[in-house]
Amino acid sequence: PAPRYKDSGTTIFTVMSSMAQQYNAINLSQGFPDFDADGRLGEFLLEACSHGFHQYAPMTGLPMLRNEVSEYIFSTQEVRVDEDAEITITPGATSAIFTAFTSILQPGDEVIVFEPAYDSYIPNIEINGARAVTIPLSAPDFSIDWNLVKDAISARTKAIILTTPHNPTGATLKPNDWNTLAELVRNTSIIIISDEVYEQLVYDNEKHTGVLQHPELRRRAFAIYSFGKTFHITGWKIGYCIAPPVLTNAFRKIHQFLSFSVNTPAQYALARVLQQPPSQPANILLQQKRDLFLSLLGDTPFTFHRPSAGSYFQLAGYSRISNLPDYEFAAWLTKNHGVAAIPVSAFYRNRKDDKIIRFCFAKKDETLKSAGERLKNVV
Amino acid sequence: PAPRYKDSGTTIFTVMSSMAQQYNAINLSQGFPDFDADGRLGEFLLEACSHGFHQYAPMTGLPMLRNEVSEYIFSTQEVRVDEDAEITITPGATSAIFTAFTSILQPGDEVIVFEPAYDSYIPNIEINGARAVTIPLSAPDFSIDWNLVKDAISARTKAIILTTPHNPTGATLKPNDWNTLAELVRNTSIIIISDEVYEQLVYDNEKHTGVLQHPELRRRAFAIYSFGKTFHITGWKIGYCIAPPVLTNAFRKIHQFLSFSVNTPAQYALARVLQQPPSQPANILLQQKRDLFLSLLGDTPFTFHRPSAGSYFQLAGYSRISNLPDYEFAAWLTKNHGVAAIPVSAFYRNRKDDKIIRFCFAKKDETLKSAGERLKNVV
Ligand SMILES: CSCCC(=O)C(=O)O
Ligand SMILES: CSCCC(=O)C(=O)O
Repeated sequence: PAPRYKDSGTTIFTVMSSMAQQYNAINLSQGFPDFDADGRLGEFLLEACSHGFHQYAPMTGLPMLRNEVSEYIFSTQEVRVDEDAEITITPGATSAIFTAFTSILQPGDEVIVFEPAYDSYIPNIEINGARAVTIPLSAPDFSIDWNLVKDAISARTKAIILTTPHNPTGATLKPNDWNTLAELVRNTSIIIISDEVYEQLVYDNEKHTGVLQHPELRRRAFAIYSFGKTFHITGWKIGYCIAPPVLTNAFRKIHQFLSFSVNTPAQYALARVLQQPPSQPANILLQQKRDLFLSLLGDTPFTFHRPSAGSYFQLAGYSRISNLPDYEFAAWLTKNHGVAAIPVSAFYRNRKDDKIIRFCFAKKDETLKSAGERLKNVV
Repeated sequence: PAPRYKDSGTTIFTVMSSMAQQYNAINLSQGFPDFDADGRLGEFLLEACSHGFHQYAPMTGLPMLRNEVSEYIFSTQEVRVDEDAEITITPGATSAIFTAFTSILQPGDEVIVFEPAYDSYIPNIEINGARAVTIPLSAPDFSIDWNLVKDAISARTKAIILTTPHNPTGATLKPNDWNTLAELVRNTSIIIISDEVYEQLVYDNEKHTGVLQHPELRRRAFAIYSFGKTFHITGWKIGYCIAPPVLTNAFRKIHQFLSFSVNTPAQYALARVLQQPPSQPANILLQQKRDLFLSLLGDTPFTFHRPSAGSYFQLAGYSRISNLPDYEFAAWLTKNHGVAAIPVSAFYRNRKDDKIIRFCFAKKDETLKSAGERLKNVV
C-alpha cells in the first residue's frame, strides 16, 4: 500500500535522543528538562482519581481547566478570552497545530512558513494537501524580513504560521512585527497560526508579545499553547488552542472527530497547579540556566551570536572546529565527546546547512557544567 | 474563512449528555461507567510522578507499556505481536482511527463502512478527502451480508472499517465472517481497519474474535484498541494501534507529526495495571449488569431483539410508545421521564430512523434500577 505521507524519516528528536542513549552522552538535543517537576503534580493526579475524574471530559476541555487557562492568559498577557467559546484543550500543542491546519486547509492552499521551522509544520501542511512556502529568517538575529513576506503572499495563501519565542533560534516577535503583519494581511482572509508554547520562557525582563494581544490579528488567529514547557512536563502532552468563536468552531469540528477529548486526570491536575502556580516561575529558573550555559560556551571553540531572548535553546556555530555537514557533526560530537545536540539543517526543508547546532539548556546545573567541560575539549 | 469540514453538528454524545445534565436525568446515553475505577490507578499515577515519568515518552509509546500490551494480546487472543515493530500507543482509539485513515487515504479513495456506524468514521474519511460507501447491517441481528460487501467493492476501495463488538448494536463478528472477508479481499490491496475497543466486553462465554487472529487478514490490518472500556476509564484517552510493520511505518509517519507522543504518567500507570490485572474482569461485571438491565427492560413497553452479545450497549425499539422521530423521542424521554439515551439514527449518514434508541448499561445497579423504574412508567 502506498502510504499517504512518506516524505519523512524519523524525527530528528527521536534520532538524537536515541543516539545520546546509545553512546551514554549528555543529551542536550531533544527539548526537555532533566530536573524535577513540581512535586504536587502526582498528588493532584491522585486527587483527581479519588474524586472520580476518570470519565470523558467535555469535548472542549474540563471546565475548571478552561477557567484557569482564561485567568492565566489574563494574568500573563492582560487579554480576556472566553473560556467556552474560545478555548479548546488538546492532547498537546503538536496535535493542536495539526488540528488547526486540518480545520482550514484545502488542497492547493499555500501556507507561509519561516525557516528554520519546527519539524512538524511542513509535514502537517503537506499531509493536509497544501503547500508550504518557506521564507528564511534573517541573519544574524533570525528576525522576519517583512518584505519577503509581502512578496510571498499570493491569492492562494491561506495561512501564515509563526513561532514566538522561536524554536530553534530563541528569537521573539516584537509589537512592531505584529503591527506589520496586521498591515500585510488587512485586506486578505489569511489566517494566522501562532505557536507560543515557549511563552513563559522569555528573559532579560522582556515580556512575551503574542498574537492575542493584537486586537486586529486576534480576530483571525489560532494561538497555540502547551503546559509542557511551562511546568517542565513535556511528557504530559496537554496543550490548548485559543481562537475567536468562528475559528474555534471550525477547529472543534475536526477536534471532536480526531481526539474527542483529552486525559481527564491530567486536565484536573493542571487546573489545580494553575490555581496555585509554583513559587519559582519557569523564566527565572531558565534565565539562570541560560546564563550559566552561555558562560560555559564562552570557554569553548563554539561561536554564538547573542543571548537567546526566549525558549530553552541556544544555537552554536562549529565552523572553527569542523567542516562536517551538521548531521555528521552532531553524530560525531555525540560519539566522540559525549554531548548530543540537534543539527539545525533538520529545521530546513532543503536541509540548508549553516554549520550550526542547537543545544537545550533546560538541564540541571551539574548537567550543564559536565557538558561545558566536554565541549571545552572539542577540537 | 471556509472551514475544511463543516458537514457536522456537535456529536450526539455531547448533545445527549448535556441534555441529561440539564434535566437532571439518568444518563444512559454517552458510553461511560458511573461506577468506580480501579483504586490503584491514582497510586500508579503518583508512582509515575515520584519516579520522574514526566518527560516525552518515545514516539511509539513507553516500552514498558508496549511490552505489557503485547503480553495482554497474547493472553487474551493467543497471538504474538512485536512490541517494537507493530504496536503504537495513541491518545485514544479515536485518534488511532483518524491516524490510520490519514496514513492510507488519498483523495478519491473509497472506504466501506457498515451502518449503524460509530459517529467519527465517516467524518474521518471525508476529512481525509475520501468517500464513505455505506452498507447496512442486516436485521434482526445486525450481521454483515457479505454479498453486499462484494457488490460494494470497487477499484477505488482503499479500506474497509469494521467494529467488533459493535457499537451501537452489540453484535460480534464470528470466525466465519473473517474467513469470508479474507476471501473477498484476497486479490486486492484493500486494507482492513478493525475497531476492537470493546474486545473485553463479550458475554455468554463467547470469546472475542479479532482481526489479529486471522493470519492472512492480519497482514493488511490496523487493529485498534483502547484502555477506556477495559478499565472503566473512558476519560484517560489512551489507545493503541497494532499493525504489521509496513502499515505501522505508514501510521507512525502521521502519528509522529500529529501527536508525537502520549501522556507519560498515564502510560506508566496503565503498564502497572496490566502487570496485575484487576481481580474482576470487565466482562464478568458487565454481563451481570446487562442481565439486570434486560430483565428491567422486560417490564417496560420497549422492545428489544436479543441479548447484546458484546459492548455495553443495548438497543431498544419504542414504536409501541410513540411515533416521534428518534431524536425527538430521545429528547422527550430525557425531559419527561428522566432517562437519556442515544437516538440510533445518529449512526446513519442519512439519519435513517428505525425508531430505536441505545442505552448504555455500564452503570451502578442502583442507577439501572432507577432507570428501570422510570422506563416502566413510560406510555
Ligand atoms: C516532540 S519532541 C521535540 C521537542 C521539542 O520541542 C524540540 O526539541 O524542539
Ligand atoms: C467519545 S464519546 C462517545 C462514547 C462512546 O463510545 C459512545 O457512547 O458510543
